[in-house]
Amino acid sequence: MSQSTYVIGHQQPDTDTICSAVAYARLKEKQGADAVPARAGELNPETQFVLERWDVDAPSHLEDASGEQLILVDHNEHSQTVTGAREAEIMEIIDHHRIGDVETSSPILFRNEPVGSTATILSELFDDAGETPSTRTAGLLLSGLLSDTVVLRSPTTTDRDRVVAEELAEIAGVDYEEYGKELLTHKSKIGEKTPREMILSDFKEFEFGTHELGIGQIETVEPAVVLHQKDAVLEAMDDVATEREYSAFVLLVTDLLEEDTTALVAGDEIETVEAGLDTAFSEQEAFLPGVMSRKKQVVPPLEDAFR
Amino acid sequence: MSQSTYVIGHQQPDTDTICSAVAYARLKEKQGADAVPARAGELNPETQFVLERWDVDAPSHLEDASGEQLILVDHNEHSQTVTGAREAEIMEIIDHHRIGDVETSSPILFRNEPVGSTATILSELFDDAGETPSTRTAGLLLSGLLSDTVVLRSPTTTDRDRVVAEELAEIAGVDYEEYGKELLTHKSKIGEKTPREMILSDFKEFEFGTHELGIGQIETVEPAVVLHQKDAVLEAMDDVATEREYSAFVLLVTDLLEEDTTALVAGDEIETVEAGLDTAFSEQEAFLPGVMSRKKQVVPPLEDAFR
Repeated sequence: MSQSTYVIGHQQPDTDTICSAVAYARLKEKQGADAVPARAGELNPETQFVLERWDVDAPSHLEDASGEQLILVDHNEHSQTVTGAREAEIMEIIDHHRIGDVETSSPILFRNEPVGSTATILSELFDDAGETPSTRTAGLLLSGLLSDTVVLRSPTTTDRDRVVAEELAEIAGVDYEEYGKELLTHKSKIGEKTPREMILSDFKEFEFGTHELGIGQIETVEPAVVLHQKDAVLEAMDDVATEREYSAFVLLVTDLLEEDTTALVAGDEIETVEAGLDTAFSEQEAFLPGVMSRKKQVVPPLEDAFR
Repeated sequence: MSQSTYVIGHQQPDTDTICSAVAYARLKEKQGADAVPARAGELNPETQFVLERWDVDAPSHLEDASGEQLILVDHNEHSQTVTGAREAEIMEIIDHHRIGDVETSSPILFRNEPVGSTATILSELFDDAGETPSTRTAGLLLSGLLSDTVVLRSPTTTDRDRVVAEELAEIAGVDYEEYGKELLTHKSKIGEKTPREMILSDFKEFEFGTHELGIGQIETVEPAVVLHQKDAVLEAMDDVATEREYSAFVLLVTDLLEEDTTALVAGDEIETVEAGLDTAFSEQEAFLPGVMSRKKQVVPPLEDAFR
C-alpha cells in the first residue's frame, strides 16, 4: 500500500491555510491521490467558526512530519513548516508568499502566484482540472480568500481574487460582503486572550541573513483593545524575543476599518526596524498609515534592511 | 520610462533555455510588458542550428545582471544563474527542475512543473493566455521540448509533453520525429571539440550542503568518440575539479540510441559518488544502464549522498 500524503499549511494556522489544506486534499482525492488534510497547530476562533459554519471536520494535528510525504500550502519556508518537515519529502507546494528556502532533490509542482490568497489559486486549480467544488468546499475556499484579503480590501487583492470570490459565493450560496463581515467579527475576538496569546495568534518567524525576527499581526476592528494594554503586550513581546533570541519582534496592530496599522517593537535591533519601515518609534510604537499587509508591505523592506 | 525585464535561462545555455527565453519574452510582450530575451553564455551548435532554422536572432549576452529585473526560465538555483543575479530583482520563475535556493522578498509568480521541458510549460502559458504562438515561436518551443526530452524518449517525458509536441509540430508545420532526428545530429557534433570544451558544453554546478559538485552531460549517438579519448577527458575533468575546488566532477556520456549512460568521475569524493549512484567505478568509469536524465536520475541520489 502506498503512503498517504499530508496536505498541510503553516504553523499558527489561519483560515486560508486550513481551508486550503482541506480543499486541496479534496481535489487530489478526486484525482485519485491518497491525500489527507492536516494542521501544524491550534485553530484560531475565526477558523473554528468557518469549519462549524460549513460543517467540516477540523483536520487532525500532525505533531511530527519526519518521514512523511507533504504537500505544503500557503507557505514555502522552513521557519514556518510543521515540525519534522526537513526530514519529510515535499511533493508539491501551492502558495502566494515570497519565495523562501524550501529546496527539493527532484522536480516537483511549485505554483506560487502573487494573488490575495492560496484559496484563489486552488479555486483556479479546480477549474483547470475541470472540477467544480462542492458547496462546502466553495464555502471553505471563499472563507480563506475573504479572510486573507480582509474581504477584498487588503492591498494584496487582485482582479483574480475578485472574480474567484464571486464564483465561489455563487456556488456556496452566500453574499460575500455580508458573509465577509461576519468573518471579520470572529477574527477580532481578541478581548478574551492574554497578551501572550494575542501576540502569538497570527505570528511568523523569518530568517533574514544572520537575523531571526518574529512578526505578529493582529487584524481587528477594535485596535484600542490591544493598545490599551500596551505595557503588558510589550512585556510579552520582550519575553518572547529573549526566549527565542530574536533580533526584533514586530507586532502589527491592523485596524480593519481605518485600513492602517500601529506597530509595536521589541528586541535589540529597533534602529534597523526603523530604517526598514522608514519610520521612527516613540515609546516602542509607530503609526503606519495605509499598511495592511505583513507580506507585501512589511516583510520585504525589513528583509532588505536586515540583509 | 520603466525598466526592461530580461528573460534569461541558465549558464551553459542549451536549446530549451534559449528557446524558452525567446518565447516567453514574446508572450510577455503580447501582454504589454517590456520584456527582452537574453542569454548567460555561448550558444551550443544545436541551438545555433535551431535559431537559423527558424530565422530568429540570437538573444544578446547579458554579462552582468546586477541591478536588473530578471525573469528566470529553465533554472532556479544561484549556482546556475547569470553573473550578478544575486544583486538583481527576480520578477518571475518558470522552470521544470528541483526547487533550488533562489529566494525573493516579495511574492512572485514561480511556476515549476515536473514535465520534460520548460518549453512545455510555456506552451501551456500561451494557451492559458488565449494566445497562439506564431510559426517561428512554435518552432522554437518544439525545439526546446524535443531537445530536452531527447525526442520524447527521456524518462522525464510526460503525457503533457507528448500532447504539446503534437500541437506545436502542427503549428510549426513539421513532422516532430523527423525534425527531432535532425536536431539530435546537431546535438552530437562533438568530434570537433577539445576535451575541455566537450566536458563543459552542457555542464551544471550544484551545492549539496558543504560540497560543490560539477555534473556534465554529453548526449550523443556516438559515445565512442568521447570514450576513445578517455585519458584526455579525465585529465580535463581533473583540471576543472582542482581549479574550482569541486568535491567531485561527474561526466555522463549518454548514448541516445541505446538509452544508457557511461559515467566518468574525478575529484576526492569518488566513494560518495559511488554510494549515491549505487555503482562501483573501475578506472574512474562506470556503466549506468537505463540512465538518461541528469535531473531525475543523477542529481537526487547524489544530493542525498552528499548531504
